Amino acid sequence: MSNNYCVIMAGGIGSRFWPLSTTRKPKQFLDILGIGRTLIQQTFDRFNKIIPAENIYIVTNELYKDIILEQLPELKDDQVLLEPAMRNTAPCIAYATYKIMSKNPAANFVVAPSDHLILKEDAFLATIKKGLDFTENSNNLMTLGIKPSRPETGYGYIQINEADNAESGVISKVKTFTEKPNLELANIFFESGEFLWNSGIFIWKGDTIKEAFQSFELEIDTTFSKGTPLYYTEKEADFVSEVYPSCKNISIDYGIMEKAKNVHVMAADVGWSDIGTWGSLHEHLERDGDGNGLTHANTLMYDAQDNIVNVQEGKVAVIQGLEGYIVVDTENALLICKKEEEQRIKQFVNDIKLGHGEDFV
Amino acid sequence: MSNNYCVIMAGGIGSRFWPLSTTRKPKQFLDILGIGRTLIQQTFDRFNKIIPAENIYIVTNELYKDIILEQLPELKDDQVLLEPAMRNTAPCIAYATYKIMSKNPAANFVVAPSDHLILKEDAFLATIKKGLDFTENSNNLMTLGIKPSRPETGYGYIQINEADNAESGVISKVKTFTEKPNLELANIFFESGEFLWNSGIFIWKGDTIKEAFQSFELEIDTTFSKGTPLYYTEKEADFVSEVYPSCKNISIDYGIMEKAKNVHVMAADVGWSDIGTWGSLHEHLERDGDGNGLTHANTLMYDAQDNIVNVQEGKVAVIQGLEGYIVVDTENALLICKKEEEQRIKQFVNDIKLGHGEDFV
Repeated sequence: MSNNYCVIMAGGIGSRFWPLSTTRKPKQFLDILGIGRTLIQQTFDRFNKIIPAENIYIVTNELYKDIILEQLPELKDDQVLLEPAMRNTAPCIAYATYKIMSKNPAANFVVAPSDHLILKEDAFLATIKKGLDFTENSNNLMTLGIKPSRPETGYGYIQINEADNAESGVISKVKTFTEKPNLELANIFFESGEFLWNSGIFIWKGDTIKEAFQSFELEIDTTFSKGTPLYYTEKEADFVSEVYPSCKNISIDYGIMEKAKNVHVMAADVGWSDIGTWGSLHEHLERDGDGNGLTHANTLMYDAQDNIVNVQEGKVAVIQGLEGYIVVDTENALLICKKEEEQRIKQFVNDIKLGHGEDFV
Repeated sequence: MSNNYCVIMAGGIGSRFWPLSTTRKPKQFLDILGIGRTLIQQTFDRFNKIIPAENIYIVTNELYKDIILEQLPELKDDQVLLEPAMRNTAPCIAYATYKIMSKNPAANFVVAPSDHLILKEDAFLATIKKGLDFTENSNNLMTLGIKPSRPETGYGYIQINEADNAESGVISKVKTFTEKPNLELANIFFESGEFLWNSGIFIWKGDTIKEAFQSFELEIDTTFSKGTPLYYTEKEADFVSEVYPSCKNISIDYGIMEKAKNVHVMAADVGWSDIGTWGSLHEHLERDGDGNGLTHANTLMYDAQDNIVNVQEGKVAVIQGLEGYIVVDTENALLICKKEEEQRIKQFVNDIKLGHGEDFV
């Protein structure tokens, strides 16, 4: 039996990719790149190359149980952990950790989001294996750090010691975590070479993260320890329904990583993107000669440049005279928006909720 | 029994309103203004105020039999004349005329397209009644002439005698017909005050148009005279299937009106539009404060001006940062096109036919 486990966090309900992504079917369940596998399927496929399927667990909102079992038929019900409420990453990780450790106390974990893109899979898997070896043999928490390619203000930054270096594969002690900086600070971070982006991919032994919960989030530890005799039984669901909603709503970064002293970061050059914006998606789509990223072939473009066009299957589209727009057509909604205004999509979604109800978002 | 009949021509298969209008469901069968009745229903309703339903006939392509009986349940099968092939207006009018006259030789007709807009209904109906009286009591062919509001190059023009005037309700002898002029000529016509637009709405007694066919299109007269014993019998359909495809493909304007000497025009100020372009539709849609014409309420506009937006029912749309565009969303297709480029829609439709087949057009 392998002691290596993967916990994929798949509870997010983002609205940035509306109307492609909706509450009923958020981004992780979409084939957003048009390559035949959804993001969560890609994430599963990737980890399954080094971790057996029976050791891969998904934590998600109750809403998405069916869609996960449909998209990942390799999983048994027991491997799909359902959150009865959204409580950020700390309770989500504790639930998965304590459940899996009730079966295998020697478990060693990689914890990852379900909706990120990894272009260099071999390098990624080598990095994860190296990380799992490191945490197997030491009581350290580890996070994967991405070498910044621009002064991005949308990510958290991790500072390493001056003496260390940020080359791929190097493991460093973390000096500080910084939440999303302003542009001035982001520029300083970027120039210094001492900062890495926080990828949200964590590696640690079960014992190590459990000790960290005991030190910094004792209530969460107490809550999920109580479940030990109930996990993998028919009583698990009732137990979780009872305790989960009263859990503290806190991220693992804020609750643990920023406080613990044994946090390390491994620099990783793995072609990582969180595909958090239409702009970043556009970079990863195949584009035509005019810079248009099209997700299927039934789209005819005339005098049109640098657009992202995503039209539902089975439909034809003609787009004339448009430059720099996002065009998304789904069964329930149509969005046409300038790329440079995409941060307003959240506002649009709220306006729709207010005016037209939840059915469209 | 009333001798007044209305023949509505509904066989057109235009592509200018694609994708709203398709071969399966052209413009006349659409509620293009979003008012709850399709254009052909509006046309029927209008004439039905002065002509009994049993005297209203539709001539259309075989393709549209079901849709007509569905949209106009007042009609009996006998009142829906099916063309087995498209042969322009002269054979279409001859078929309806000779059929109806086989039952009522004293029939007096108004012949009209099914897809025009009439804003001043009372004035229109008064005009039609006046015209029917005029043709009932004289052997004249009559057409309705619209006072030009701009030097339009898309319409035919009718010149009246200098002595006559172009005020509404005045009946004049026609001096010449001119097919679509170039802009220079259109400007001269417009300035002169002696020209009216040819609306394609005709009024005449059956005997009078029959004589005209005998004089100018004898072959068509011979063909449809032969059908006299067969109309309103089970043999009618076979007869029409046999003779129709070999009919001359010619318009009533070119075949008869431009040649006959007894042609009159009645100037009509009736709020007429053939809604032949998105631009002309835009003029007739209700618009928001930014000049956007929206056909339903589930459309949210941000920084958007002077667009025409037509999104399918049950769908929400968000449009940001667009100015002067046509946006049409249907089950099968999406069109985004600058208003000033709308004449290219025919080309787009051809490109789709070539690349993606007939299903989308």
